[in-house]
Amino acid sequence: MGLIVEKYGGTSVGDLGRINAVADKVATSRAQGNDMVVVVSAMSGETNRLAELAAEINPLAPAREVDVLLSTGEQVTIALLTMALHRRGVDARSYTGSQVHIRTDSVHGRARILDIDDARVRNDIANGHVVVVAGFQGVDEEQNITTLGRGGSDTTAVAMAAAMGADECRIYTDVDGVYTADPRIVPEARRLDWITVEEMLEMASLGAKVLQTRSVEFAGKYRVPLRVLSAFEDGPGTLITYEESPMEQPLISSIAYNRDEAKLTIRGIPDEPGIAYRIVGPISDAHVNVDMIVQNVGADGTTDLTFTVHRNDYKKSLEILTETAKKLKARDVGGDDNIAKLSVIGVGMRSHAGIAATMFQALANEGINIQMISTSEIKISVVVEDKYLELGVRTLHKAFGLEDGADV
Amino acid sequence: MGLIVEKYGGTSVGDLGRINAVADKVATSRAQGNDMVVVVSAMSGETNRLAELAAEINPLAPAREVDVLLSTGEQVTIALLTMALHRRGVDARSYTGSQVHIRTDSVHGRARILDIDDARVRNDIANGHVVVVAGFQGVDEEQNITTLGRGGSDTTAVAMAAAMGADECRIYTDVDGVYTADPRIVPEARRLDWITVEEMLEMASLGAKVLQTRSVEFAGKYRVPLRVLSAFEDGPGTLITYEESPMEQPLISSIAYNRDEAKLTIRGIPDEPGIAYRIVGPISDAHVNVDMIVQNVGADGTTDLTFTVHRNDYKKSLEILTETAKKLKARDVGGDDNIAKLSVIGVGMRSHAGIAATMFQALANEGINIQMISTSEIKISVVVEDKYLELGVRTLHKAFGLEDGADV
Repeated sequence: MGLIVEKYGGTSVGDLGRINAVADKVATSRAQGNDMVVVVSAMSGETNRLAELAAEINPLAPAREVDVLLSTGEQVTIALLTMALHRRGVDARSYTGSQVHIRTDSVHGRARILDIDDARVRNDIANGHVVVVAGFQGVDEEQNITTLGRGGSDTTAVAMAAAMGADECRIYTDVDGVYTADPRIVPEARRLDWITVEEMLEMASLGAKVLQTRSVEFAGKYRVPLRVLSAFEDGPGTLITYEESPMEQPLISSIAYNRDEAKLTIRGIPDEPGIAYRIVGPISDAHVNVDMIVQNVGADGTTDLTFTVHRNDYKKSLEILTETAKKLKARDVGGDDNIAKLSVIGVGMRSHAGIAATMFQALANEGINIQMISTSEIKISVVVEDKYLELGVRTLHKAFGLEDGADV
Repeated sequence: MGLIVEKYGGTSVGDLGRINAVADKVATSRAQGNDMVVVVSAMSGETNRLAELAAEINPLAPAREVDVLLSTGEQVTIALLTMALHRRGVDARSYTGSQVHIRTDSVHGRARILDIDDARVRNDIANGHVVVVAGFQGVDEEQNITTLGRGGSDTTAVAMAAAMGADECRIYTDVDGVYTADPRIVPEARRLDWITVEEMLEMASLGAKVLQTRSVEFAGKYRVPLRVLSAFEDGPGTLITYEESPMEQPLISSIAYNRDEAKLTIRGIPDEPGIAYRIVGPISDAHVNVDMIVQNVGADGTTDLTFTVHRNDYKKSLEILTETAKKLKARDVGGDDNIAKLSVIGVGMRSHAGIAATMFQALANEGINIQMISTSEIKISVVVEDKYLELGVRTLHKAFGLEDGADV
């Protein structure tokens, strides 16, 4: 058939029984005549167990050594899966990130892949081996072990697929595809047969945990045919596509949410050039990611600025903002971590007006007040009170007719 | 001071508390001005845990993959110890066997070290780092991960010391040195301040578990100053020496024992050239190590042959021998796994007669029957009934006056 890269995450290889199940799946794909590269994560819980050992022995453990420690997690999985494949008569060989030459920069803990020297893997495949590769890890120019950060195994799989020109990269996970909304909140939510890479990117950046943002970016850059599917049951999953076909394009493909954020407001600041930077700059300097930023012009020559950060960074950000407020002689500072972000996503909104109006009206009809609004070319996000999250998601799912695939 | 290679085994790094204790010891050595290379094993129990996972997922797991799996054990320890050193303000860096270029042959599970490319380690040491190296593992020409077999961390330490011309190689273990006999059996046993490498080799080959045979051979070959000492308490330990000084040489340095063997006998075989090979050959072909071999000449043109193997190989060996006996038309085959081997060891016996006589008489006085005898230049071993092991060791320890260091 062709060359398939498959990736199985931590839950999918969580114990020996699960590893045997993955070996069965890989053996089946192999028996269908495919050449196979299999990328695996550490067994679920293992990375956390190791991270806790590190934190206990040295709360300020050097990042280089944390990577040496954490990378053993995937190394255990590649060995066990390869053994399981041999037991099924499938000739297989395991490779660590270092052995397969997944070269990265030297930023331990969140290294970026620079290139892959796939000569040895190609040779193995030509000789009929299934190649099992440790996800999440690489090696820098000095042969130091690096890790790509949480979720990095997705990136490893996509990078392998890109380097080798694979026919498909299959990300096996604990859901059977990408849905129009979280099925735990919206029982009518439907699995999408396909979704565009731009929509997938918006979903990932909004915290939908199906795929890691960087792996989707990587797939987009190299146009890797990427499919998300279940490690636990058979099914076609969801294909990420790179070509828009407006004829079949629904306006909106999905509703996403995020309850990991908090918002901060500074009021009564001078309305002058550079003021936004003087407020957001110190927050960024403290390595806090700022997400949404909204600025209103006030009537009296002053202005207000509101922004959101991850909820874990709320206290730190509030302290920094309070300091900034003193320097700028701002009127006051406020914050709220009982918020949720609701987003509608769809490449179709590029060519259709009225999406925002439909969204705002639907929420208003349910008495849900909108606190902040932010838009991109293919996404509209609003911040509402935390308690309205589920109602909001269900309302929007219905307002855009996602339950039956119909356009509004 | 100088360059010291220290090695800590699995028990010495068995949990985070023990790793912290090792970090304290290393920090102290470092503070005394020593350059340091520290070799560590997997935390005790970890190698067994991993081996059990392998056996469960594939009882015939490929050796290459077993090595990928097992080598994670030491990798965890090097990272944790390096973190603990950093916490003490000691600048340290960890290296896997692959990173330090411990090049081995490709015999997975019991690879032999070919050479070590220590350029990077030297550079680190010149820059003031303590270097922490994973024991037990290496890498072959094809960058496959290899392991040296159980106890291989001792060999790693000695090989590092030899490659770098270290001033001393210190093997930290759970005993505080080499004793005249096992103190659990002989309460009067004394720690030896020094022992010759030949005596240490005999002890290691007899199953005294202080040092692995190969590591002592390696030390002897490169004349590495080697010291065995306790990881748990302070003390001088025992130094392995390379120069004989007959003036101070005791006749016998220690009494060793081994209860891991079984003996097999084949009787009434033709007394003709090549007969020993035809009997022992098939046993060796089954990868069973044969230890002692004794052949007696019979009266009727036939002969008997008795040999010992590891107790784990007893049943397999008995089956093979029974097959051989049919082919050779031997009279009968017998075996016994209730045996123990007692040995007296000492370079002094080269120049003194009467050691064997003293040994046999002492055992006879206690009514202990000798079943087999085997000698080397500096060792006499006898096989006796298993139940006499403790009595035999105590009897010999006393007969050679080892409790007070006096010669007989």
